Amino acid sequence: TRLFISDSSGVSNSGESSKESSRCSTPVLDADRTDRLRDKMKRRIESGDRWFSLEFFPPRTAPGAVNLISRFDRMGSGGPLFIDVTWHPAGDPGSDKETSSMMIASTAVNYCGLESVLHLTCCNQTKEKITAHLNKAKRLGLKNIMALRGDPIGKDWVEEDGGFNYATDLVKHIRCEFDDYFDICVAGYPTGHPEAESYEDDLRHLKEKVDAGAHFIITQLFFRAETFLKFVKDCRAIGITCPILPGIFPIQGYHSLRQLVKLSKLEVPEEIMQVIEPIKDNDAAIRNYGIQQAVEMCKVLLASGEVPGLHFYTLNREVATMEVLRQLGLWAEDPRRPLPWAVSAHPKRKVEDVRPIFWASRPKSYIYRTQDWDDFPNGRWGNSSSPAFGELTDYYLFYLKSKSPKEALLQMWGEELMNEESVYEVFTNYITSQTNRNGHKVMCLPWNDDPLAPETNLLKDELEKVNRRGVLTINSQPNINGKPSSDPIVGWGPAGGYVFQKAYLEFFTSSENVTALLQVLKKYEPRVNYHIVNVQGRNTTNAHDMQPNAVTWGIFPGREIIQPTVVDPVSFMYWKDEAFALWIEQWAKLYEDESPSRMIIQYIHDNYFLVNLVDNDFPLDSCLWQVIEDMFTLLDSPPETQKD
Amino acid sequence: TRLFISDSSGVSNSGESSKESSRCSTPVLDADRTDRLRDKMKRRIESGDRWFSLEFFPPRTAPGAVNLISRFDRMGSGGPLFIDVTWHPAGDPGSDKETSSMMIASTAVNYCGLESVLHLTCCNQTKEKITAHLNKAKRLGLKNIMALRGDPIGKDWVEEDGGFNYATDLVKHIRCEFDDYFDICVAGYPTGHPEAESYEDDLRHLKEKVDAGAHFIITQLFFRAETFLKFVKDCRAIGITCPILPGIFPIQGYHSLRQLVKLSKLEVPEEIMQVIEPIKDNDAAIRNYGIQQAVEMCKVLLASGEVPGLHFYTLNREVATMEVLRQLGLWAEDPRRPLPWAVSAHPKRKVEDVRPIFWASRPKSYIYRTQDWDDFPNGRWGNSSSPAFGELTDYYLFYLKSKSPKEALLQMWGEELMNEESVYEVFTNYITSQTNRNGHKVMCLPWNDDPLAPETNLLKDELEKVNRRGVLTINSQPNINGKPSSDPIVGWGPAGGYVFQKAYLEFFTSSENVTALLQVLKKYEPRVNYHIVNVQGRNTTNAHDMQPNAVTWGIFPGREIIQPTVVDPVSFMYWKDEAFALWIEQWAKLYEDESPSRMIIQYIHDNYFLVNLVDNDFPLDSCLWQVIEDMFTLLDSPPETQKD
Repeated sequence: TRLFISDSSGVSNSGESSKESSRCSTPVLDADRTDRLRDKMKRRIESGDRWFSLEFFPPRTAPGAVNLISRFDRMGSGGPLFIDVTWHPAGDPGSDKETSSMMIASTAVNYCGLESVLHLTCCNQTKEKITAHLNKAKRLGLKNIMALRGDPIGKDWVEEDGGFNYATDLVKHIRCEFDDYFDICVAGYPTGHPEAESYEDDLRHLKEKVDAGAHFIITQLFFRAETFLKFVKDCRAIGITCPILPGIFPIQGYHSLRQLVKLSKLEVPEEIMQVIEPIKDNDAAIRNYGIQQAVEMCKVLLASGEVPGLHFYTLNREVATMEVLRQLGLWAEDPRRPLPWAVSAHPKRKVEDVRPIFWASRPKSYIYRTQDWDDFPNGRWGNSSSPAFGELTDYYLFYLKSKSPKEALLQMWGEELMNEESVYEVFTNYITSQTNRNGHKVMCLPWNDDPLAPETNLLKDELEKVNRRGVLTINSQPNINGKPSSDPIVGWGPAGGYVFQKAYLEFFTSSENVTALLQVLKKYEPRVNYHIVNVQGRNTTNAHDMQPNAVTWGIFPGREIIQPTVVDPVSFMYWKDEAFALWIEQWAKLYEDESPSRMIIQYIHDNYFLVNLVDNDFPLDSCLWQVIEDMFTLLDSPPETQKD
Repeated sequence: TRLFISDSSGVSNSGESSKESSRCSTPVLDADRTDRLRDKMKRRIESGDRWFSLEFFPPRTAPGAVNLISRFDRMGSGGPLFIDVTWHPAGDPGSDKETSSMMIASTAVNYCGLESVLHLTCCNQTKEKITAHLNKAKRLGLKNIMALRGDPIGKDWVEEDGGFNYATDLVKHIRCEFDDYFDICVAGYPTGHPEAESYEDDLRHLKEKVDAGAHFIITQLFFRAETFLKFVKDCRAIGITCPILPGIFPIQGYHSLRQLVKLSKLEVPEEIMQVIEPIKDNDAAIRNYGIQQAVEMCKVLLASGEVPGLHFYTLNREVATMEVLRQLGLWAEDPRRPLPWAVSAHPKRKVEDVRPIFWASRPKSYIYRTQDWDDFPNGRWGNSSSPAFGELTDYYLFYLKSKSPKEALLQMWGEELMNEESVYEVFTNYITSQTNRNGHKVMCLPWNDDPLAPETNLLKDELEKVNRRGVLTINSQPNINGKPSSDPIVGWGPAGGYVFQKAYLEFFTSSENVTALLQVLKKYEPRVNYHIVNVQGRNTTNAHDMQPNAVTWGIFPGREIIQPTVVDPVSFMYWKDEAFALWIEQWAKLYEDESPSRMIIQYIHDNYFLVNLVDNDFPLDSCLWQVIEDMFTLLDSPPETQKD
């Protein structure tokens, strides 16, 4: 903990601006959420914490984009300081296509919460076009640019007057047009740029780029640690002081290596070729060698004291890079979560620290539907009647569609449904992660694209029991009465704190069940709050119609209380539209029009209710299972008893 | 709990205004904090909860004002629905004098948190003057007016054209100039107004007043329940439907009764005079009779079903009215606190639900120093660098000076101080509430105008020990790990919730102690947060310089989390000025210039430090006593050990 010394005269001065100030809170965020990339690097360098970063290229197809985005989520969990996305002039990189560099980088920032660097090349581009790209990047929440010259089109490229002939021109342009807005990265060539007159000449160019306003350097790949260390020494010698990150390329296969060498005009050292040539047809052997070679080289680099972080050329693959990082001890198996949900990296959203619980399994959908908000709730949910949620449009469905192809979904959810009970079985199999009668595991549901979260696993037995009987659960959390914030399953937030939860359960169920449930819930007033709604929007609740209920909160040393998850009555009505729509969009449409299977799903969609329950008495064992039990008891009892 | 039914189409409409909306929170407050007086009455009538209200007149002297204000606090704790303050045209009632009707009513609203009705008389007043009074009342946060004609000056008063001749004119004027802003009360005369032509004629006048826009009626006093009940029946018969509150006058003495009868031209019934005349010189006997008589009459009134609330003419005395209310079961011995501190009744302040802990014993000072704020923190403390705190001015000291006269203070705090230890003894005697060596109990300190709070009493033994050794405590709270919100000592907020606290300790101590303390505190990082400051404002802390620390919070059914008390680094510097100033203003100035006693206090003021400590680990026993113990151990150890 740092020691702050201030004196009171400063305090008195700061008081003067009171009249303009709103009492609304400006939360003090963790530096990790507010700092610019350059400052994060600075802090890591000062503290001696090594980092890593990951480079990806944009996918060629829409399914490829869906895959890459889930790869961002998986690789993001290892704790990269940033990722970067390359720029392919031939692929319409600045467009709104799902596969464009711009859109992929924007998705990484906004939906995956990753600090991201967008590459940008300038040759054969007009200033106007470049400025338009930068404006768009800024609008999308991107804060970092890797400024590159790019490869000229055609062999006979000549310098253009007034155009961009060097990356330096681009760096200057960014600084000139956008002042200090972007953090800028430039490329360094440990063996000199292939087109440079000499290694020394190339170093001078690099110095110019940095002097023009770049904040850090990422190098081209290399194969020997000493190549990079000499390069750093030479850079320092001519006065380049910014961070220089080595580009690490774990060899992943014979052909990709050959391809890369050709493009980059690099020479693979003899000692490597000697190992690889004999095993060139054994992919696994080459990858293992590549991992071992990268680990050895990285160890030398890190031990040198000259390397604050490692940059990985992933080639959009996971295994090799993750393995290298694991062996180096840099992969954060259990990254500390600042909040219980993934924080978006968009600069406008960084104050956000409250969300409705409903989108817990669909955070990207929540971000998409609230992307037009001008400000985000912090401290508390606020006046929930005001925000507009985005409509359920086709485009929005792109990022939100299941990762699994139709065939896989049919295998999991049934080629043919017999009746409502077939649906109950799908839910039950998802909970138990057992194989269904056709031998397939149910790995996802329309409301949950991933297997059960570890936290939900705590409730597995109870969930199985109720799903079997037609209480089709789509969201739940156990009550927590003050577990350490470091708890591996339910912990989040700064160290030394305590986290709390109220038990929550959300499910679809038939109108018969709802009638009994409402009867039972009277006994649980005011301990249990409920909202019950059908697809037409008829809503029955015992909660205040404007007051959100905080269901997750944390108490931390030296801070105000953080309450990141609420059950909010107004946004529940927006969620309801989405939750019901998923029955049709993701499930019913798998089947032919008019088919019995489709009609069963349609019937559930039209007739079932969506219910959420909160047990407010968080220090006691959750009573929600007893509520459901009581509902079934009432349903099973003779009719005269039911009229009580 | 009520059941709300809404439908989703309404929700979608409300979404449209999103662009203008700020995400800042508009908290949903309890109806008791937001409703207008008329609505509170309506809710009480519907629920069948009886209420009472209290009438006071403005004091004649400044010490009288100080007394009346502390009477407001004491009588406010019994839970009146409102109080009212009479208007004395001869006493400059609309002025800024401490003793004016306007200032007294404003104090009741703003500083005592009491719903208040200001009387206003109109005869012999210009419209402009009346409007000016009303504007001022509005500005001060008053929302309710009792509209009266008042007594004409001189016997030969004649109606003025264009002036105010009847209370009806005033009611109309208020409605015309201020629309619906004020709730209006008018007077009813159960035996007819003394100047009215007839009882029936007076009833018609009353009907006119109500039709002109009054919301409820308070009656003149009366001595028999049937007088009032007949009056209510007659009012209802001619179409007066608003609440009619009986004015109850517990007879408190022979002379005050005679005086009142003369002024009001009422006749005391024979059966009362027969009891009183024989005991007219025995004040206690008359008061006992008066209590008994009032209780009997009130019981009849309440049993009639016609009386929703009782209005008491207190004559600015406490005992008789409180006793009547206790016997009727209307005095709330343990009124539920909506927040751990008294909520101001000013309409602008009603969203306020966070305050710094420093002013816990000086809430009026806090309200005074923040009265110019345009909005108040809710949900969280917010950006604490912006608000300006009012300066420590003379006027401000008026409301904040000790209730005790100088002589009493000298008896408690010492006619003559020998050394710093004499001061330690005063603090220790305050904590233990034992008599000092001159036989006087120390009932207050400059920082605490009242004896130890029940909650602080929990810490009594530890506090005594440290004060004896020169750790001069002025504020503290124990840690609380989830007690029910109904707990009689530490509970607050709605039923069914849980309250929490971090242990807090604030004290003055010598710079030698502070040196050792800072050494000791290193061992307690990051569990303990501290701020240490001297009168010059040199501040040492291990807390973030902008981040407040929530030290009291509550979790309630169906709500967001409430965190009403924070340790805020910026406002601590404003509090520091006040805390140090109190040494001089309240204590040193009791003694002659240059006297040894004065110089001792001055020395402490100039050399001691103000320290606050928070133990963040609220589920564990507080470690703050151990911190102090460690400090003394270090001080007692040989010098070489201290250098560790």
